[in-house]
Amino acid sequence: MSEGTGCYRREILFSTDFFEVVAIEWASESAIQPASQAMSPRHNHGWSQCLVLVQEGTFEDQLDLGMKKEIRILVKGEVLSTPIGARHEMKCKSQTGKTLHVYTPKIKELTEFNQFNSALEGRFKSDLALVGATDIDTLRNLLSHFKDLSVSTHSPYFMNQLFSGVLPQMLIAEEFIAQTKTTLATYEASPVLSAMESEVVSTLCEKIGWPTDPRCGISVPGGSAANFMAIHCARQKLLPQSKTKGAGEKVLKVFVSAEAHYSFKKACAVLGIGTDNMVGVAVDSRGRMDPQDLEAQILQCREQGALPLLVAATAGSTVLGAFDDIQSLSAICRKYELWLHVDGAWGGPVIFSQKHRHLVKGIELADSFTFDAHKLIGASLTSSYFLTQHTDILLESNDVSGGDYLFHSSNEATLDRGRLSWQCGRKGEAASFWTIWKSLGTEGIGQFVDRLVDLRDECMQWIQSQDRLQIVSQPEYLNLCVRVLPPNKKHDPNWSQHVREALKQKNLAFVNYSANSDGTFLRLILANPYLTFDHVKQILQWAIEVD
Amino acid sequence: MSEGTGCYRREILFSTDFFEVVAIEWASESAIQPASQAMSPRHNHGWSQCLVLVQEGTFEDQLDLGMKKEIRILVKGEVLSTPIGARHEMKCKSQTGKTLHVYTPKIKELTEFNQFNSALEGRFKSDLALVGATDIDTLRNLLSHFKDLSVSTHSPYFMNQLFSGVLPQMLIAEEFIAQTKTTLATYEASPVLSAMESEVVSTLCEKIGWPTDPRCGISVPGGSAANFMAIHCARQKLLPQSKTKGAGEKVLKVFVSAEAHYSFKKACAVLGIGTDNMVGVAVDSRGRMDPQDLEAQILQCREQGALPLLVAATAGSTVLGAFDDIQSLSAICRKYELWLHVDGAWGGPVIFSQKHRHLVKGIELADSFTFDAHKLIGASLTSSYFLTQHTDILLESNDVSGGDYLFHSSNEATLDRGRLSWQCGRKGEAASFWTIWKSLGTEGIGQFVDRLVDLRDECMQWIQSQDRLQIVSQPEYLNLCVRVLPPNKKHDPNWSQHVREALKQKNLAFVNYSANSDGTFLRLILANPYLTFDHVKQILQWAIEVD
Repeated sequence: MSEGTGCYRREILFSTDFFEVVAIEWASESAIQPASQAMSPRHNHGWSQCLVLVQEGTFEDQLDLGMKKEIRILVKGEVLSTPIGARHEMKCKSQTGKTLHVYTPKIKELTEFNQFNSALEGRFKSDLALVGATDIDTLRNLLSHFKDLSVSTHSPYFMNQLFSGVLPQMLIAEEFIAQTKTTLATYEASPVLSAMESEVVSTLCEKIGWPTDPRCGISVPGGSAANFMAIHCARQKLLPQSKTKGAGEKVLKVFVSAEAHYSFKKACAVLGIGTDNMVGVAVDSRGRMDPQDLEAQILQCREQGALPLLVAATAGSTVLGAFDDIQSLSAICRKYELWLHVDGAWGGPVIFSQKHRHLVKGIELADSFTFDAHKLIGASLTSSYFLTQHTDILLESNDVSGGDYLFHSSNEATLDRGRLSWQCGRKGEAASFWTIWKSLGTEGIGQFVDRLVDLRDECMQWIQSQDRLQIVSQPEYLNLCVRVLPPNKKHDPNWSQHVREALKQKNLAFVNYSANSDGTFLRLILANPYLTFDHVKQILQWAIEVD
Repeated sequence: MSEGTGCYRREILFSTDFFEVVAIEWASESAIQPASQAMSPRHNHGWSQCLVLVQEGTFEDQLDLGMKKEIRILVKGEVLSTPIGARHEMKCKSQTGKTLHVYTPKIKELTEFNQFNSALEGRFKSDLALVGATDIDTLRNLLSHFKDLSVSTHSPYFMNQLFSGVLPQMLIAEEFIAQTKTTLATYEASPVLSAMESEVVSTLCEKIGWPTDPRCGISVPGGSAANFMAIHCARQKLLPQSKTKGAGEKVLKVFVSAEAHYSFKKACAVLGIGTDNMVGVAVDSRGRMDPQDLEAQILQCREQGALPLLVAATAGSTVLGAFDDIQSLSAICRKYELWLHVDGAWGGPVIFSQKHRHLVKGIELADSFTFDAHKLIGASLTSSYFLTQHTDILLESNDVSGGDYLFHSSNEATLDRGRLSWQCGRKGEAASFWTIWKSLGTEGIGQFVDRLVDLRDECMQWIQSQDRLQIVSQPEYLNLCVRVLPPNKKHDPNWSQHVREALKQKNLAFVNYSANSDGTFLRLILANPYLTFDHVKQILQWAIEVD
């Protein structure tokens, strides 16, 4: 922590690795400017908790939670508790002031990309080995060391996945979930967590434009699982007897675009549909499913005697961030009686944005929706939802007999969410998204989306001014796909991959890459709540400097 | 916190709701007994962290982690950090001593069974609602209130599920997992967590007697998911073409006992096998699958032209804790070429016990195994593993093309565990079991199982001395099934259910019930790491007092 402005005197009362107690005296620099001159710098505390007791004077605290800022005035006797992972700055509003600070543990700078790798793994063989007992302090030191060696996903320079950043609200929720360890199978074992999940599901459905009913959705272990569930529910609706009799000889067909997530293929293998029965539909130059090709493929399957089951549209594809045209696809699905699923694992949060909701225009026409809160919204990994407009389909698809030891008939049994799920023991993951949503409010989530889209436009403008950088596809969302030209400015299909590996090896930034027919390109994901234009510019400047 | 023995003077330096700083002076009561007389009582700190700096003197600390105790000597300048959820007691070993204590937050007694319920839910409607934004302090107060209203699964009087207690090591691991938020799909995004999962899987396989290979298992979202995976892998082995072509017209049969978990039925619905094709095999009086009936059923299915696929044995059934005879079932499976799966979600930990491993004799003959670390072993919910002796089957069953954006070819790609899984984004849950295992050591886990079995025997003896209590079935494991007779001592099939509801309504204890042909009975689960004979006796005495 660097020094602040004004007179700011720190006295360390107790200092240990596990905690530190510090007294601070604040005074303004001159009598002419008496107020709000003594100020701590905006700082984070790494993984430490910061607690401040105001002993004298009046203070203003600005808490930066990444996705929102909160300002609070504190007077004598009041206490500030800055959550782990947050940043803040304090100002003394009075002539003088005194504060007492407790940090647990002692503040330590966060490491950035000091990574563990397979070459290193051998060195930690005995640390990783599970044989003898280990005392608690040794164990915590080991975990602390492993934390330093882990990929720094908290960093704004981490853009390798569709999530980035470790949100303070997420950490608070995780503590709540861990301390109330329970299973979401029955209401009686998880009244609060079940109510939270019901609230999240109902309110999401309301945002989509569907019945506001907690049975219209369930938390599932990841976006892939939500896509699995979509095919499962679609089959239940089309062929209800398959639940008892099995898939049978009828060949079902699942239609996805070439840019769709690979989980649909896994689902076809798992559900007994067969991966050969997943039909790839052509996409346009921006990665959006071609409705004409879809219709042609459906007709062809029907001619071959197969039964078209489901179309999976993508709202925010993994590489380009493309949004399929839901309205057009819906019209085709209605015409041929197919289930329309929309995979919004990445793009789903646009439903919160007044400005960008048009990307999923017609979403209320879909039969089901995949929504992940652990990507853009920063909830705990995983915080995924399968949502559907068909109120009874989850129960019809998933409830079986034989669970009487657990699901007792009682007044509250209709609230038992386990009957809607593939899982029995199930974590109260909904508390994570619930906490973030409660913190930001519905509008606040939308504003966060808007802020990042604005940031994207700012980045785009700068990229266009750089002759070594080429935009691969006009972005619809928060994926910036950029090709880097080598120093000689000649096209090299492998150069962007080389750049990506170099940034990673140098521990500067961790971004991903992909390829099209012209070769590899960088994929930058704008998701970190503390991300600024300077971070993105810095990554791309490093990218240009790679030789 | 009550006062300790000896001279023990506390001075509160700073006291707020968020933290408390306390100075303690220690002195022995008389000069005749100079050492180790001043002692804090054995106490827990609720959900607070307790940090102690030794400023003068020498101290002995006994830390009680439930599943183990650790003793440590501390001299001047050393710091003790008692993890959240643990208990400890401190003794002053020197003539006098001085310590400084920091508690975050201020210590607050844990609530026991002050429960939320559906009647209450209405009162919290606006607290639960997701509309406007909420500042962080209000949000934390709300979560703290919700924590008090949640079911107290940390309590030794909580026995409703197959888990009980909130282990300090689990909380430490959860913090680690949350702060290193990442996905287990690729090694490059999760080097440490992937290595931990590989270590847990390999070492579990070694304990079973299988190849020590990280590809022989994967963490899955719950025991149910592991059972799903067993049927999926068995089908892949028997009919490899089903992955691409679909389940087809062949009728597959899955054999489970009447006491098996209901997840097998769900799996049959999901995988396209059909619930009608799950065959229930008879059990003996102690709930164990009858091998003769199994053989008869297999033969009958073959005669009907169906294809017997898999037998699911249970190691520790949910109600009675019964263990199927793996050796006999294995012989039948080999004779008719069926996959033998063992569902050890509850009973699996006996593989760690030298004394009780005989319950799963022949486990190395099985094809696959379900192991849950979140039940008896106290890991985070869920911490489940699907394990198999067939090194390549998980990859063969689950790897599909189309994930090139994520799974890049590199030296480390063979370490990408996502290819073995149904999930793409996947939490590093293995760190939870890894942390507990590292803390206890392999023998320590076995000793924990042994201690609870000894406790069961002590309880059994006492129950047999009570004329209002009847043992329903001689327990093989940690399920105590007890029928309570009403005050008139006449058989009443509904009395035990009535007792269970009364204990719950009175917020005394939360146990579950089940029923057989003679009516309902209580099911007590011995799993809480802080459980003693007195707790069990107390619950049963309360049960007898119900009118």
